[in-house]
Amino acid sequence: MSYEEMKIEGRNAVLEAFRSGKTIDKLFVLSGCQDGPVRTITREAKKHDTIINYVTKERLDQLSETKKHQGVIAVAAAYEYAQVEDILKAAQEKKEDPFLILLDNIEDPHNLGAIIRTANTVGAHGVIIPKRRAVGLTSTVAKSSAGALNYTPVAKVTNLSKTIQELKKQGIWFVCADMGGTSMYQLDLKGPIGLVVGSEGEGVSKLVRENCDYIASIPMAGEIDSLNASVAAGVLAYEILRQRNIGQ
Amino acid sequence: MSYEEMKIEGRNAVLEAFRSGKTIDKLFVLSGCQDGPVRTITREAKKHDTIINYVTKERLDQLSETKKHQGVIAVAAAYEYAQVEDILKAAQEKKEDPFLILLDNIEDPHNLGAIIRTANTVGAHGVIIPKRRAVGLTSTVAKSSAGALNYTPVAKVTNLSKTIQELKKQGIWFVCADMGGTSMYQLDLKGPIGLVVGSEGEGVSKLVRENCDYIASIPMAGEIDSLNASVAAGVLAYEILRQRNIGQ
Repeated sequence: MSYEEMKIEGRNAVLEAFRSGKTIDKLFVLSGCQDGPVRTITREAKKHDTIINYVTKERLDQLSETKKHQGVIAVAAAYEYAQVEDILKAAQEKKEDPFLILLDNIEDPHNLGAIIRTANTVGAHGVIIPKRRAVGLTSTVAKSSAGALNYTPVAKVTNLSKTIQELKKQGIWFVCADMGGTSMYQLDLKGPIGLVVGSEGEGVSKLVRENCDYIASIPMAGEIDSLNASVAAGVLAYEILRQRNIGQ
Repeated sequence: MSYEEMKIEGRNAVLEAFRSGKTIDKLFVLSGCQDGPVRTITREAKKHDTIINYVTKERLDQLSETKKHQGVIAVAAAYEYAQVEDILKAAQEKKEDPFLILLDNIEDPHNLGAIIRTANTVGAHGVIIPKRRAVGLTSTVAKSSAGALNYTPVAKVTNLSKTIQELKKQGIWFVCADMGGTSMYQLDLKGPIGLVVGSEGEGVSKLVRENCDYIASIPMAGEIDSLNASVAAGVLAYEILRQRNIGQ
């Protein structure tokens, strides 16, 4: 498996990539470069919530594969993001209740990869990540997913709260992993469900949490009161799978 | 929290550290250095299954804090390893059936840290790791454990299979995480238990697996047939906790 990042170099190529709707994970721009075409590119980048890094010419030369970067290099995942609708369609085709895993600002690529891997093993239909701040589908993520990226679609959305609101209208319940909620064993986790997992340091953001129907807590029997994000996602996702299978 | 590694430098200091029974994680020796004292030290290191790295003078100078390394630097975890007996005593004092997590050659310090963290949150009494090949309690491990190293004892043993055999005589059952076993939901995981988790790439080694009473498998509902080691440990450890709590 090879999911190397794809580099797009040069002003026209980068601008076209944005306009064609390709998801650009990161943009490198020559620091101090402010001419018309570059400003058009950075405007597109801001519109698409792409992270912009202003760097030196030396850094750009080092990143460049073609050596013709003209002051801009965009990094896109070779892996294509799915649409949320594709994920729902996959559930429908399998005649299963949708089972989604939503990640609120997971920044560690190893955690993201491990969670995509878990999403596959629990039979979730897809993973939804936000555009802003979160890590993209880099080669580290692909490697940590142990091949799951080939099977489990990942969608990138602009606003996780809005996506949750829209999916709720379609009958999906959202359960958010956090401390101080109801024990996951006490919750009914069957039916169409979205599991929302937050970042290591900060957990699920306030707005996203408020949009969830339930807060599910993992029992804590020791002195430490939280788990590694990918372990927490795994424990909760498997509790969902267990409850789903009981009914069968 | 700071669990920096402790460096012990110079021939006498290193030799004394070995002789006092201190657990040395790693030994750096000046490449080509074969005199009497150095040979005594490497002999001690081999006796204790310490990893020996032969390095250049430049590398030693770079590692040295005292600048008086005399060709040998030992690295010991500032954190002290516990004895298996201490772990059993902790269970006894809490009037609980022992709950141990044994790791067969986990090499990734992030995974080791995450598993020690999980061991704490599921209320396990301790973690047992083998001396050979496994990663030691480095500062990366301590950091990934999110403070759990302060509470959950970790013991290092020479031979994991022998330790399992001895603990079986004391009434502890051993369940090994692996593919092709019985579904973890079908197994009775209550009572005095040791959960054995293998390394990412190779799983649990043959000899260790043969010494276990049961093989527990995590259901796999997708295309991928294994989980990240710390996620697998988390899912199984929480199934043990769930079953323990049902009985209460």
